Amino acid sequence: MEQAKIDFLKLYLSLYIDHFTVLQGLKQPNSPYVVLDVRNAPAQVKKVQIKGALPLAAKDLTAHLAELDKAKTYVVYDWTGGTILGKQALLTLLSNGFKAFELAGALEGWQGMKLPTEPVTA
Amino acid sequence: MEQAKIDFLKLYLSLYIDHFTVLQGLKQPNSPYVVLDVRNAPAQVKKVQIKGALPLAAKDLTAHLAELDKAKTYVVYDWTGGTILGKQALLTLLSNGFKAFELAGALEGWQGMKLPTEPVTA
Amino acid sequence: MEQAKIDFLKLYLSLYIDHFTVLQGLKQPNSPYVVLDVRNAPAQVKKVQIKGALPLAAKDLTAHLAELDKAKTYVVYDWTGGTILGKQALLTLLSNGFKAFELAGALEGWQGMKLPTEPVTA
Repeated sequence: MEQAKIDFLKLYLSLYIDHFTVLQGLKQPNSPYVVLDVRNAPAQVKKVQIKGALPLAAKDLTAHLAELDKAKTYVVYDWTGGTILGKQALLTLLSNGFKAFELAGALEGWQGMKLPTEPVTA
Repeated sequence: MEQAKIDFLKLYLSLYIDHFTVLQGLKQPNSPYVVLDVRNAPAQVKKVQIKGALPLAAKDLTAHLAELDKAKTYVVYDWTGGTILGKQALLTLLSNGFKAFELAGALEGWQGMKLPTEPVTA
Repeated sequence: MEQAKIDFLKLYLSLYIDHFTVLQGLKQPNSPYVVLDVRNAPAQVKKVQIKGALPLAAKDLTAHLAELDKAKTYVVYDWTGGTILGKQALLTLLSNGFKAFELAGALEGWQGMKLPTEPVTA
């Protein structure tokens, strides 16, 4: 039983990337990471996003896959870590051969750590 | 490894139903869905619930299974998606042969999207 | 498919312990439980913790394993149930032969139920 738990936790945690790794990557001149804001909400509801994120709602992701770059690693996030939108986006990306992770803690955790955000423009 | 992640995500996501599908279903004259509020809290703490939900605390679920209808699909929700009460209720329902899903985003997400709620009556 | 969901839910839920079980255990003269606050945050950000918890940040856990007791059962918690820190700590503890669970609902749920907390001292 303990081994089943350990295997489960390893697989579960392998879906995630932490904010520190993402922040360090984004500082590089040719960052390997592209942060995707996959919230299904209009700009006036989203208000702010992670600085440098690309808004691409989970519901529109499949229609925009051709615009994405297989050389990049996509980091998706939703409002909180308790929703399923990040995992839906992650499934779409991985199933289509993209490298992708969900941001641990989501936007809520990012803001809780006072990491850089910016206003969402419509 | 990517395939293991994909299989994990598919199984995880298969536990959930989204608010849009539930709302559409509830508008039908003979809705297939019954929304169960499984929060273990008294009415004065819960205050509001999803409009039309049936209050049935997760702790009392096993004792009330005989009152449920195998022709229906049960949609369970707790305060947020980060708790385990919805999954406990889901396990009880599925293990007893009921059709059931957890509401994606839970009550927090439903309220965040300003979907219809109503006061909880004691 | 339903059996796969049931197996998944059983495994997922086996990672957790509920607040009621923990509270009852802590009341015993020789409690089997030790509550670990694994938040990676300074005392002035954490402000309060679960009463009697031992602060041991997830990032420092591996370096302090020798101080832990294999006769005890560790109960780890982070801010909310939507983060991955609790699961990271749980993986470290289980992989090193300790008995451990994640607290269902995390600190957010504990506070929501008005269970005892105390100020964090630096």
